Parts: sequence; C-alpha cells; structure tokens
Amino acid sequence: MKPYVQMDKKELKAELASLMQEYKKFQAKELSLDMSRGKPCIEQLDLSMGMMDVLSSSVDLTCEDGTDCRNYGVLSGIHEAKVLIGDMMENHPDNIIIYGNSSLNVMYDTLSRAFTHGIMGNTPWCKLDEVKFLCPSPGYDRHFAMTEYFGIKMIPVPMTSEGPDMDMVEKLVAEDETIKGIWCVPKYSNPQGYSYSDETVRRFARLKPKASDFRIFWDNAYGVHHLYDDKQDYLIEILAECKRAGNPDLVYKFASTSKITFPGSGIAALATSPNNLEDIQKQLKYATIGHDKVNQLRHVRFFGDIHNLTEHMRKHANILRPKFEAVEEIFEKNLGGLEIGEWTKPRGGYFISFESMEGCAKEIVSRAKKAGVTMTTAGATWPYGKDPKDTNIRVAPTYPSLDDLKLAAELFTLCVRIVSLEKLI
Amino acid sequence: MKPYVQMDKKELKAELASLMQEYKKFQAKELSLDMSRGKPCIEQLDLSMGMMDVLSSSVDLTCEDGTDCRNYGVLSGIHEAKVLIGDMMENHPDNIIIYGNSSLNVMYDTLSRAFTHGIMGNTPWCKLDEVKFLCPSPGYDRHFAMTEYFGIKMIPVPMTSEGPDMDMVEKLVAEDETIKGIWCVPKYSNPQGYSYSDETVRRFARLKPKASDFRIFWDNAYGVHHLYDDKQDYLIEILAECKRAGNPDLVYKFASTSKITFPGSGIAALATSPNNLEDIQKQLKYATIGHDKVNQLRHVRFFGDIHNLTEHMRKHANILRPKFEAVEEIFEKNLGGLEIGEWTKPRGGYFISFESMEGCAKEIVSRAKKAGVTMTTAGATWPYGKDPKDTNIRVAPTYPSLDDLKLAAELFTLCVRIVSLEKLI
Repeated sequence: MKPYVQMDKKELKAELASLMQEYKKFQAKELSLDMSRGKPCIEQLDLSMGMMDVLSSSVDLTCEDGTDCRNYGVLSGIHEAKVLIGDMMENHPDNIIIYGNSSLNVMYDTLSRAFTHGIMGNTPWCKLDEVKFLCPSPGYDRHFAMTEYFGIKMIPVPMTSEGPDMDMVEKLVAEDETIKGIWCVPKYSNPQGYSYSDETVRRFARLKPKASDFRIFWDNAYGVHHLYDDKQDYLIEILAECKRAGNPDLVYKFASTSKITFPGSGIAALATSPNNLEDIQKQLKYATIGHDKVNQLRHVRFFGDIHNLTEHMRKHANILRPKFEAVEEIFEKNLGGLEIGEWTKPRGGYFISFESMEGCAKEIVSRAKKAGVTMTTAGATWPYGKDPKDTNIRVAPTYPSLDDLKLAAELFTLCVRIVSLEKLI
Repeated sequence: MKPYVQMDKKELKAELASLMQEYKKFQAKELSLDMSRGKPCIEQLDLSMGMMDVLSSSVDLTCEDGTDCRNYGVLSGIHEAKVLIGDMMENHPDNIIIYGNSSLNVMYDTLSRAFTHGIMGNTPWCKLDEVKFLCPSPGYDRHFAMTEYFGIKMIPVPMTSEGPDMDMVEKLVAEDETIKGIWCVPKYSNPQGYSYSDETVRRFARLKPKASDFRIFWDNAYGVHHLYDDKQDYLIEILAECKRAGNPDLVYKFASTSKITFPGSGIAALATSPNNLEDIQKQLKYATIGHDKVNQLRHVRFFGDIHNLTEHMRKHANILRPKFEAVEEIFEKNLGGLEIGEWTKPRGGYFISFESMEGCAKEIVSRAKKAGVTMTTAGATWPYGKDPKDTNIRVAPTYPSLDDLKLAAELFTLCVRIVSLEKLI
C-alpha cells in the first residue's frame, strides 16, 4: 500500500470507511487486553518457583560468615548477595548496598534523603528555592511522577538511539547549579529500548556539573534483560568509567531482581562510590536495622552464581522474544510503508516505543481503549504527562499471552491507521 | 545484709574490698556476654522455621481474591495479611497498611514524609523553623536517634508505671504548636515494661493539640509479647478510643512480626484512620509499587489465624519467662535490701529497666564492659543520650543463653554494688 500522505481525499475516505468496519468487528469482540505495564507474564514467574524450595525448616539459614539471617542486623546486606548482585551489576561487592524489594523505593529513599538531609553535607534540597532534574524523554513514567511529587522542576532532554542529547546535558549541568540530577535508564531504555553508546557513557562520566551534589540516577533496570543470545547491547560500566574520569562520586546506580525472580519479592541494590556509600550508610542506620536477609539468602541459594542467573535470563528471553517479534511483525505488516508511525526494535528490556504522526497519540490510545485494549496513557512517558508533540506511545508486550498480544497489536495498528486517516482528512 | 547507706565508712570499705576480689575473679574468666539489644534468641527463631515450609514450588501463591502474589501491585498489602495483622493489632483490616520488613522503617518513612510533604495538607515540617517531639523517658533509643537525625527538638516527659506524665503532655501539646508528635511504646514499654493505664490511654485519645498535624506515634511493638499466661497487661485500643473521643486522626499505630517470626524478615504494619490512610496512600504510591506480598502470604499461611499466632507467642513466652525470672531472682538475691537500685518486673516485652543510685549508671555499664558484659550504653534510653540523673540502665535478657544470662546478671549486680560503694565512700 502506498503512503497515506500520497493518497488523495477520496482514497483516504475509502480507506477510513473500510477500516472502521474492521474496528467495529473488534468492538463486537468485547476484548479486555492490557499492554500498559511492564509486568512479567505468568510463564516468567513460573521460572522462579524453584526459589520457594531452596529454603526449608531443614536448611541452615546461616551466611558464609556465620551471620544468622533470621535475626536483626547487617545494614548493607549479606556478603554473598553482594557478590551475586555485584556480578549482575558489574560492580565490586564492596560498592553495593542490598535493600528491600524495590529499586523504585531505593530511588525514592535517595531523593527523600537528599531533600531532608542533603547529599554529602550539602544543603538539604528542601531548603533550596528550586531543584531541577534533567529528564531524558520519552522516559519512565514512575521516575517522572516521583520527581514531580517532590516538587522538582523537570527539564526534558531529547532521547536519541545513542542516549540523551549530551550536548544539552553537558551545557545545562555546567551552567545551572539548581540542576541536581538526571534520570537515566541506560540499557534497553524505558520505553524505547535504546542503549547508551560508549560515547554517551563516556561523556556522562566526564560531566562537570556546577552543583557538587549533582548525581546521575542510573537506573540499570534492564541490565541483564536481553531478548537475544547473539544480539546483545553492551554498556560501559558507569562507576568504573566515572572513577577513571576522576569523577568517582557522580553516580547512584540502581538495579533489582524484580524482573528476574518475582516483582515485589525480589531484592534491590544500589552501587556507588565509597564516599557516597559512607554518606548513605551513616544515615540509613536511622531508617532501619536491616533489610530482609532471608530473602537475600533465598536468592543466593536459588541462583548460586551469575552463570546460573544468566541461564535463567535466557529462559525469560525465550518467553519474551516471540512476543516482541510478534508485535514488530504485525506493526510491519499493517503499518509498513504507510509513513504514519515508527517503532523501535529493541534487543532487550520490556518495551517497544511507538511514534505516531504529530497530535495522534492520545487519540490512538483512546480509540484502542474503546475497543478493549489498554495502553500506557499517552503522555505518561514525558515529564508532567505532557508529550509536546503528542506522538509517543509505550507498548508493553510482556504480560499478555501471545494470542492476546497479537490481537491487541492488530487492534492497535488499526487504531493508528484510523486516527492517522482522520488527521489527514 | 543491711542497706549500704546505713553502713559506716569502715564497713563500706571492707565490703568494697571483698567485692573487688569477686570482680577480679570475673575478669579472669574473660567473658564475652551481651545484654545490650532486644534480640530474640536462637530457640525463639527456631519456633518459626516452619514458615520456611509453607510455600514451595508446588504451592499456589495466589490470594483469596485471585491476586498473584508473585507479581507487581497491591500497594497496601494483601487482604488476608490485613486480617491476620488486624486481629493482632485489634484493628479492622481496612484501617491497615502492610509494609515491608521493619516497623522502624515505617516510622522513619512517616516522619520523612511529614518533613518533605507535610501531614494532610499542613506545611511540610522541613519548612518550619522548629519541630518538637515529646519523648517519654526512659524510652526506645532508636526512636530518639531517628528524631535527633531529623533535627527535631526532643522534650523528655517523665514515665511512670501508668505511662507518661499526662498532665505535662496535655499542657505542652495544648500550648505549643511546634510540638508535632509524641513517641509511645504503650504496652510492655521499652525499657521499663510498663503498660499504659486505662486512664492514660483515655487521656491520650482526648488530647487537644494546638498543632493540627500533631500525631501520636503509637509503637505497639510488644502488643502480643506476654511473658505469662495468667498475668497479662491489657491496653485500651487507641484508634477506637480516639474515634470515640472525636479525635479519629490523632494516632499512627505501628506493629510488626519482627519478634514473632524473624527479625528482619517479618512484616510491618501501620493502623490509622481512613483520613490518615488516604493521605498516606496517595503519597506512598510514588515510593513503591508494593511491598513483599509473597512474604505476607508466607506469614498468613504459617499462622492461619490469630489463635495460632497466640499459641505461637506462648512458646516465645516459655523461652523468655525463665530468663526474665532468673535476672529478677539474681537482682533480688544480690541487691535486695541494699537500697542502691530498683528494677522493673515486667509481664511482657523485651526489657528490664534498672535504676541505680544517682550518677552511677555510666560507671556500672563501664565496669561491666571491662569484665566482658556488654549492656546498652548508659544514657541511650534518654533523648540525646543524656540521662539527667545518670541512673537508667536497660537490661535485655532475651538473647543470651540462660547460663550466660545468669553469669551476666551476677556480674552486673556486682558492678552495681561496687560502683554504689565507691559513690558512698
């Protein structure tokens, strides 16, 4: 089929009429499908059921160093968990704090402490007239929601397939002391699935922020979440690169096993420099006596080592890859050549990002909803929920079954075509 | 033996010389005993090992309402956990949020949110020139440490066997708008093991604080932690009493299973009014997607209902009661009639509180340490670590074995006698 822009009014109208018939057929099916959130599917959760067997009443819950995991203590996490998660994050165990079940909560906690007590002796952010964060966009809606909640002014920075626009990042952080942080999902980014290029990571490590309490919030949520064995993205390890660049304290790096074992019952971690660790731990001790060591031990006993975790991620990939490919295939089949949208083809992570014609995203999501398919709210991938061109839609293919997903993708592309036609007419 | 105060100098010196011989014998034993922290002992931890068996790969991890506990979601906790913990806390499940593994962390979180965002639309505390808390003393050192960490000015309020001095509490909160909270451990208090009288609870529920964002931080840490079957303290349920008094939003009530199952791997909870709950939950959603539901389910499946939990606490009591009684017996045997100290005889909780002669507590703890017995730092039970009369020592009898404990108690009483003699001479 030729691009819609090359069609005349009559052709466009005929096409729209025909598609509306299809749309009505979809509506008649009374679907209830969800492509809105990055949730693992049941088959993925089943991969970790063995974790429920590794501890029992006949198993010793003692760490290698003799710590009884059942009792109080060990603020920064048990050593063997730091080794496992360190291997996963590509960081030394000594640079890691193991937290509770949610890396989002670790980020919140980090922000919150910066507000109440300041970073490394700097003025608490709550005492400042203005605090700003750079927000590579589109990005993760929960990052933005949390940032807005704290009253931080968000400045969108354009994303490219290489990462954020580094010219803009470098310029802004160097000249504005009220810019205190930047949100990064550096690998298989949310929602585009882009991984930062070597050049981008190198430039991040060499930032010269005006604010001494500026930190890069490096949310490596999808560090080991590949879709392919043979086509994987590699990321320069940011802590090591910062150290090499003479900027050791620039980064807070976050990760968790939420999408490795069980979301909500995994373990989260922060990796950062010795100075930052000291600053955090001397404060963290007021907030808790320690996190759930039994669950840390459970993860260690289940995986044993990073090799088994890698094999485990291969099983996740085998479940997810067909889903991503099915969506991409349907997008190509139904939208290819029409020039009314573009989509990413990530090698990992949890999302496909769709860019519609300008001013169409909201209407596409609304139309899909009316036929029973829930997408992430249009705009959610931008600070304040405001996508300036109304083009970005996050597609989350992981949770639905393959059949449901195909149906949802068919409907979605149909909605894209209808809304684009309406726009052109 | 007659009271030391009735001895003349010569008698005192002879007594001291004799006791110093005993002390040297203790030192020669090179002991390393710890009566400093309220940690459950190994036998207590063993009581909950069955909790490691209730979930396995062949067990369905689905809630009664169909929620898959393995996946994301359910911010306020699974319903069956609310029922169990509600029965434990004597609160309706709808008034409860189930959190992660630490009630201390829930308290921190609550304070922190009051600082960054304020309570129910009131000015965030970080924007105020001064914030004060009332601190019934002696009290829990971690409450005070956290309060100091936030820069809150602490005002000690005398504790009696009926609870805090309510005349003082009523007067202060009514006249000072900068007083925003009070720390209470209302049942088997830390460190004295006192339980608030009906009158005290009734007066708490009827407080008329000047500050609309004043809250009672009601840390019911030992609500079900009895030592006796036949001699138990009962506490008027504070939320119900506040509601009756027309003060429904006055209280945040905290509890956890840390000293019921595993410290660090239990579940914590907050019970409060619908208004407070709404205020908290609309903010909590920025901080996390949800807490560890699998662990919530594990607790529910292990206990089944409150009756089994009650039976479980009876087993804890059977382990702890002999320890408390051994300490009390040795205290009586070695200190009875000497008029150099007093101690509490709690019916539950984790501590015995010792009151020495004025100006002796620090020296007693120091002397015990030099002979290998670690006590809680003298002063720790008071705000800023400053016990004005230097008299209070917290005794934690739960962790050591009965034999170690007896040895430690013998040494402790010896130190009390020596330091008192030195003071009198």
